[in-house]
Formats: sequence, C-alpha cells, structure tokens
Amino acid sequence: MEQVIIIGLGLMGGSLARDLKKTGKYSVLGMDKNNKHQQLALELGFIDELVHMEQITEADFVVLATPVNAIPSLALEVLNRLHEEAVVFDMGSIKNPLCKYTQSHPKRSQLVAVHPIAGTEYSGPTAAIENLFRNKLTIICEPELSNKNALEKTIELWKNLGARIQFMNAVEHDKHLAYVSHLSHISSFMLGKTVLEIENDERQIFNLAGSGFESTVRLAKSAPQTWAPIFLENQQYILKSLDEYIYNLTQFRSLIYHNDEQALHSIMNQCNHVGEILAGIALKNNQEH
Amino acid sequence: MEQVIIIGLGLMGGSLARDLKKTGKYSVLGMDKNNKHQQLALELGFIDELVHMEQITEADFVVLATPVNAIPSLALEVLNRLHEEAVVFDMGSIKNPLCKYTQSHPKRSQLVAVHPIAGTEYSGPTAAIENLFRNKLTIICEPELSNKNALEKTIELWKNLGARIQFMNAVEHDKHLAYVSHLSHISSFMLGKTVLEIENDERQIFNLAGSGFESTVRLAKSAPQTWAPIFLENQQYILKSLDEYIYNLTQFRSLIYHNDEQALHSIMNQCNHVGEILAGIALKNNQEH
Repeated sequence: MEQVIIIGLGLMGGSLARDLKKTGKYSVLGMDKNNKHQQLALELGFIDELVHMEQITEADFVVLATPVNAIPSLALEVLNRLHEEAVVFDMGSIKNPLCKYTQSHPKRSQLVAVHPIAGTEYSGPTAAIENLFRNKLTIICEPELSNKNALEKTIELWKNLGARIQFMNAVEHDKHLAYVSHLSHISSFMLGKTVLEIENDERQIFNLAGSGFESTVRLAKSAPQTWAPIFLENQQYILKSLDEYIYNLTQFRSLIYHNDEQALHSIMNQCNHVGEILAGIALKNNQEH
Repeated sequence: MEQVIIIGLGLMGGSLARDLKKTGKYSVLGMDKNNKHQQLALELGFIDELVHMEQITEADFVVLATPVNAIPSLALEVLNRLHEEAVVFDMGSIKNPLCKYTQSHPKRSQLVAVHPIAGTEYSGPTAAIENLFRNKLTIICEPELSNKNALEKTIELWKNLGARIQFMNAVEHDKHLAYVSHLSHISSFMLGKTVLEIENDERQIFNLAGSGFESTVRLAKSAPQTWAPIFLENQQYILKSLDEYIYNLTQFRSLIYHNDEQALHSIMNQCNHVGEILAGIALKNNQEH
C-alpha cells in the first residue's frame, strides 16, 4: 500500500481522502493547521492517523489541499523533505504562482500541478463527500516539468477516482478559470450582498425568492478563506474578467434606461447560445463515459 | 365543470393548463398569437380546443399568460367581454402596470392580479410541465380591488394546484421582485455574455466550466421575449437594483486591486449569511406542508 499524506483536510483534501481509502490501494494520513479539522477528520474516519511535517520523508504521495496562497511555500518545504521516488501534487484553483515559485527547485520534477474541476459551495471536513471527482475534468499544468514517474503515478491515482485528465499551460489555465469559475463566484457573492442590503429593511424579501435566485446566489455560500486567496493570487485575470462583466452590465443598464427593446432582445438571444454550448459539452462528456 | 380560457400557451400558461386538466374540475381552452404554439398545445393535449376572443363571453375563468407588456391592454379587452360571474387573472411577473392600467375599469373587481413564483429557464409549450406550482408561493396583489367571488374562486383554483397564497401591495411586489428575480436574470445573462465574448477566441474555455458556472449562468437560457418586457416594465426598480449591484462589484474590484484581504474576508463572511436565510426559509416552507 502506498502512503498518502494530505495537508489540508477540508472539502477538497477530505473528499480525496474518502475516495483514496475506498480504493484499498492507499493508506491515508493527514494534517491540518486547524486542530478542530484534524479531530473531525479522525472522527469522520477519512484519515487513518495524524502526522507531522517531519514524517513527510516517509510518504509516497503528498497532497497540498490548503487555500491557494499557502501552496507555493508549502510545496518548497515538502520538496525539501521528499524521498526521491515520492511525488507531491496540489489541488489548487490557480496554477501559475505555484509553477513560477517552484521552477528552480532542484526537485521540481517530483511536483505535479493538479486542479480537479470539482467542488461544492460548502467547506471544511464535514463538507467532504465521496465520488466528488468521478467523471470530472482534472487539469495537469506544465506536465513537461514533472518527471515520468511523478506524472504517471499522479495520473494513475486520479484515474482510480474516475477523473478525466487534460494537460494545460499554467497561464492559460489561470486566465480561463478567471472567466468560468472565479467570476461566477464574484457575481454570486455580490448578488447576495445587494439583496442582503435591501433585505435589512425588508425582512420578507427572501420569501419571494424562487429557484432562479437560489441558483445564481448558491456560490455566495462559499468559504472566504478559500476564495479571498484565489481572487488575490489570480488578480490580473480576475480584474480583466470583472471589468468586462461590469462593462456589459453597464451597457445593458443603458439599453433598459433607453427602452431599447430590440437591442435587449438581440443581446439575450446571443446569451441563449450558452445553453447550447453547455448542453453540447454535457453530451460529449456522457458519450466519452 | 368550469370553463377556463388561457391566453398564452407557453411555459406558464401551458403548465397551468396541464395541472388544471388533471384536477378534472375544469375544461381548458386556449389561444396564442403564435400559431405554432397553438398547434403544439393541441398536439401535447394540454388544451381541449382552440378558441377566439369572441368566445371569452362564455368563460368562467380567463387567464392572461402572455409576456408582461401585453397583459394590461389584454386585461381591458377581456374585462369588456366577461360575463358578470366570470373572473380574469394574469400570471405576470410585474403587477403595478396592470393594476394602474385597469384601476378605473367598471369591471375591475372581476380581475385578480396573480404572480406564481415558479418557472424554469425554458419557454414555449414544450417547456410546460406538471406540478410547477406545487408548494410554491403565489402572490395576489391588491386583493381589496377584486370582489369576493373573484378572489375566492381564484384562491380555490390555485390551492387546487398546491400553491401557497400571499397578499401583497403591487408596488412592493415589483420592487422586491426586481431584487430577488429580475436582477438574478440580468447578472446571469451578462455572465454568459462575458464568457461567450472571450470564448470566441478560445473555444475550449467551456470545457473547463464546473457546476458553479452552470448554476450561475443557468438563467441566461431564458427567453428574450419574456424577459425584455419585464426589464422595461419594471424599469425603475431594476435600474435601482442594477446600480447597487454594479456599485458592489466595483467596490469588490477595488479591494482585489488593493490586495485588501481582510476586507474581502469580511464582505464574503456577510454574504455567507444568504445561505442561512435561504435554508431557514426552505425549512419553514417544508414545515408548513
């Protein structure tokens, strides 16, 4: 059995631990800066025991599942301790800061930069669920910087959990994720804020919320300790996507203000196209599995 | 059996027709400006036959289920033809323009202003589904302007479909719906637009979209012919909510730009509160039924 040490026992690390234990192929150990999370992970039974940083030397795999701002320096510390056949990979939503920070480390090739496109709006060990990664895309960035052993073992581990693997450039990854993930979170947080502000005076407003509001505001339940670091680490692309979003909202506002029904129709017709694209991708993914 | 004539056979009118037929208490007739919709409604079997405006005189109930901009003038036309025991109600998402437009009609008391808080992102007769209104809130505005017979019969009809009834002032209704429904649609349409614009150059971007993006962009599939009129009819409150939303986005952008992690945390913590409120309401609704 290979020994896996997971650093960070929340939604991502915890869900990975659950699935790895279920395969029967790995012994799963863990640590978390938050002592309550450590105790919960033991009680929930998704790790076998707690470990210390000194025990990293014994691991076959080390997984970095902390907030993204902690990952680069943690990666260096782990690489320094890792035995030569061992592998470290992260699960962060941003890849370029990690790739840049570790690029000149002598053991860089033992690191694999991983981002599973999976999650929920909940956080902490109690949010960890089984099969979170099944049939989901898992991105590996800069695979050419990882050695053959590290890359093959990491891919095997993720395929054991039912994930689909795709390689990407780290800068491209961070840019695209700003649009299809990070921007969604900001739009949802700010929608929640806008409605909460009016709701201070008008308690009953939430009673009127239908499934549409619930759907668009779902991500506003996400954890600040996860998302503040993502917004700051991916600052450049998030500011760009946010500027484009605010520009589009401002233009749309102007069309409403000027009663331009034809232009509103035309823009919304274009937007409807998003449904066809998402349906096409869902179909393709189902056919592949 | 009471005779119901539904004008507008799309998602809302069609779903109502399906449920009314199922009760066995109503014969359901219909009409739609779009001849394809009329044929589809007959083929799908949710209306018994097509009728003309002249046949309104025979109806016990007339339902206005068209886009909101057509409702006020249609209400006058129907009131003019209605027999004195009959009732007309609408299903529009905006209530004040209808209430104002009809206020001095001699038969105003035969009209009930109804808004069921239910729907999906799909449209047209094929989008009509059973049980759309079950356990959902249905708002009746300005009930004091409807006569006892009209109000009681309308409430009975909606309760037969499993709806919960709440009375509201029409202006308050339109203001609140701007925040908890109309703003969500605009935020979702513009999120779709922003991502589609970058996607023109980068085809693969949608492959990276997770469930979070799908959730926030779901409403961007909604029909322009339904939503353009809503945005224009509820212009005043939508502009206000949109200004507040854009202001909040701009402030949040500034905090990211200035690396103010503490302020980002604090704002997102406040936003997390939206989850507790929605969970509380869901619990209350379940307990009531």
